[in-house]
Amino acid sequence: MARYLLTICYDGSDFCGFQTQPNLPSVQGELERALSRRFDQKTEIVASGRTDTGVHAFGQMAHFDTDKAVDVEKIVVELNALLPPTIAVESCCEVECDFHARFDATSKTYIYKVYLSKRQCPFKERYFHICGYDLDVEKMQEACKLFVGKHDFKSFCMAEPDKDNAVRTIFDMHIDVLDGQKELDFVVQGDGFLRRMVRIVVGTIIDVGRGRFSLDEIEKMFDKKDRRVSGKTLQPSGLYLKEVRYGQKKQKS
Amino acid sequence: MARYLLTICYDGSDFCGFQTQPNLPSVQGELERALSRRFDQKTEIVASGRTDTGVHAFGQMAHFDTDKAVDVEKIVVELNALLPPTIAVESCCEVECDFHARFDATSKTYIYKVYLSKRQCPFKERYFHICGYDLDVEKMQEACKLFVGKHDFKSFCMAEPDKDNAVRTIFDMHIDVLDGQKELDFVVQGDGFLRRMVRIVVGTIIDVGRGRFSLDEIEKMFDKKDRRVSGKTLQPSGLYLKEVRYGQKKQKS
Repeated sequence: MARYLLTICYDGSDFCGFQTQPNLPSVQGELERALSRRFDQKTEIVASGRTDTGVHAFGQMAHFDTDKAVDVEKIVVELNALLPPTIAVESCCEVECDFHARFDATSKTYIYKVYLSKRQCPFKERYFHICGYDLDVEKMQEACKLFVGKHDFKSFCMAEPDKDNAVRTIFDMHIDVLDGQKELDFVVQGDGFLRRMVRIVVGTIIDVGRGRFSLDEIEKMFDKKDRRVSGKTLQPSGLYLKEVRYGQKKQKS
Repeated sequence: MARYLLTICYDGSDFCGFQTQPNLPSVQGELERALSRRFDQKTEIVASGRTDTGVHAFGQMAHFDTDKAVDVEKIVVELNALLPPTIAVESCCEVECDFHARFDATSKTYIYKVYLSKRQCPFKERYFHICGYDLDVEKMQEACKLFVGKHDFKSFCMAEPDKDNAVRTIFDMHIDVLDGQKELDFVVQGDGFLRRMVRIVVGTIIDVGRGRFSLDEIEKMFDKKDRRVSGKTLQPSGLYLKEVRYGQKKQKS
C-alpha cells in the first residue's frame, strides 16, 4: 500500500462543494469516481479541507491510498481523461504512508477576487465578486493588516455548534491590484480558516473601503465575538483556494 | 413613437440562445422582460440576428420602439438593474424610425476563441474551445485567407431547408495569437453568416493546422457544396458575436 498526494484545480460553479453529498455533483465525488475507475476498486480521498458550494480552487490537495502500481506522470493524464472539464489534476506525488492531507497542512492561502464595475460584467460574474462602490484601497490595505496575527475569529465566521475554538493565526493578508486597477485580489494566508471566514473578512474590509466601518471599529469587532457586528458574507464565486503548504514531511524521498 | 438601438453583451452559457423559446431562458426573453417592466407595457426587440445556444456576444445589437420618454444614458442603468448578471446593456442610442437592426446591418464580426492545452483548463472551459493538438499557426493563417471573398458556403454550414442561398462575402479573416501563444482568436468579418458557419469554418481550419486537410483540399470543399466534406462543428462556448456594423444610416442626428 502506498499513499499519493494530488494537486487539484477546479471551477466550483457547478458543484455542491468539495465534499460528497447524496445525489449532488461534488468535486470529491468526481475524483473518487475517476480514481475508482482507474484502479478498478473503490478508492477514497482525504482532502486538505472542504470548500463550500461555488468556491473554486487552483491548488486543492488530497491524498489516496492504493496497492496498485502508480506512475505519477501517467496517472495525471489518466485521471484527467476520466474527469469532467471543470476539474483538473495538476500533479501527483508519492508521500509517506503517515502523511495526512488535512492534519499535516501548515498553511493555506486563499484569494478572493473582486472586480470593480458600476454595472454587471457578464464574463466576470462566475469568477469575481462584482463591486460597484468606490473603494479606498489604501485604507483597505491598512484593514488587512489588522487581521494578521493570532486572533479569535468568532465575529468573522459562520457559527458551527460543534466548533468552539475560533482562534486562528493569519500569516499574511494584502490586496494585489491588477488589470488597470479594476481587479482587487485579496490574498490571505493562515494556519487554518473557519467556515465562511474569508468571505466575511473580505466583506468587512470592503465595508471599510466604502466608509461604512472605521479601522477602530474593526479592532473592536474581534473583542465582541459576535457574527452580527461584522460585514456581510460575500458570494462564493470570488473565492479560490490557492495553495496548501506542508512542512518538511510532504514528499517521499 | 421613437426607435432605439441597444448594444448588448452576454454570456450565453445558461441561455437556450438569443431567440425566445417557450419555457426556456433566452437573452431576448430577458431583454423584453426588462424593457416591458421599465415601460410598463409589452415591448419587443428586433436583433441583428440570433445566436445559438451557448454562444456569447460582446456587441449584439437590437432595436425597440416606444412612445415613452427615454433618456439614453439613464435607460442603460435602469435596464441593467432589471437584467440578470450575465446580460449587460452597454449603450443605447436613438435611431431613425425606419432603421432596422437586422436588415440594415452591413457587416458582422465574430471571434472564435481557442485555448491550446493538453489537459482540461477548468477556468477556460466556458469561454474557449480547448485544443490539445499541436497546430501550425502559419498554415492556418494561410487557410483563413482562402475564406476571404465571395463564396458559396454550402459546405460550411448546417443545412436549413428554407434557405437556399449560401453565398456570403467574407471581408477579413485572420488569427490573433495572444496570452503567450496559448490563445488563438479566430476573427472573421463578413456581410452575413449561415447557421453554424463560423464554428464549422474554424473547425476546418484547425484540421488544416493539425495536418488533416491541405490548403488545396479546402479550396475543393467550396466546389463540392456538401457539408460532409468539411471539418467538425466546434462547441458553441468559444464563439462570440463581437460587432455589428451599420452604414451611415444608424444614429439619429
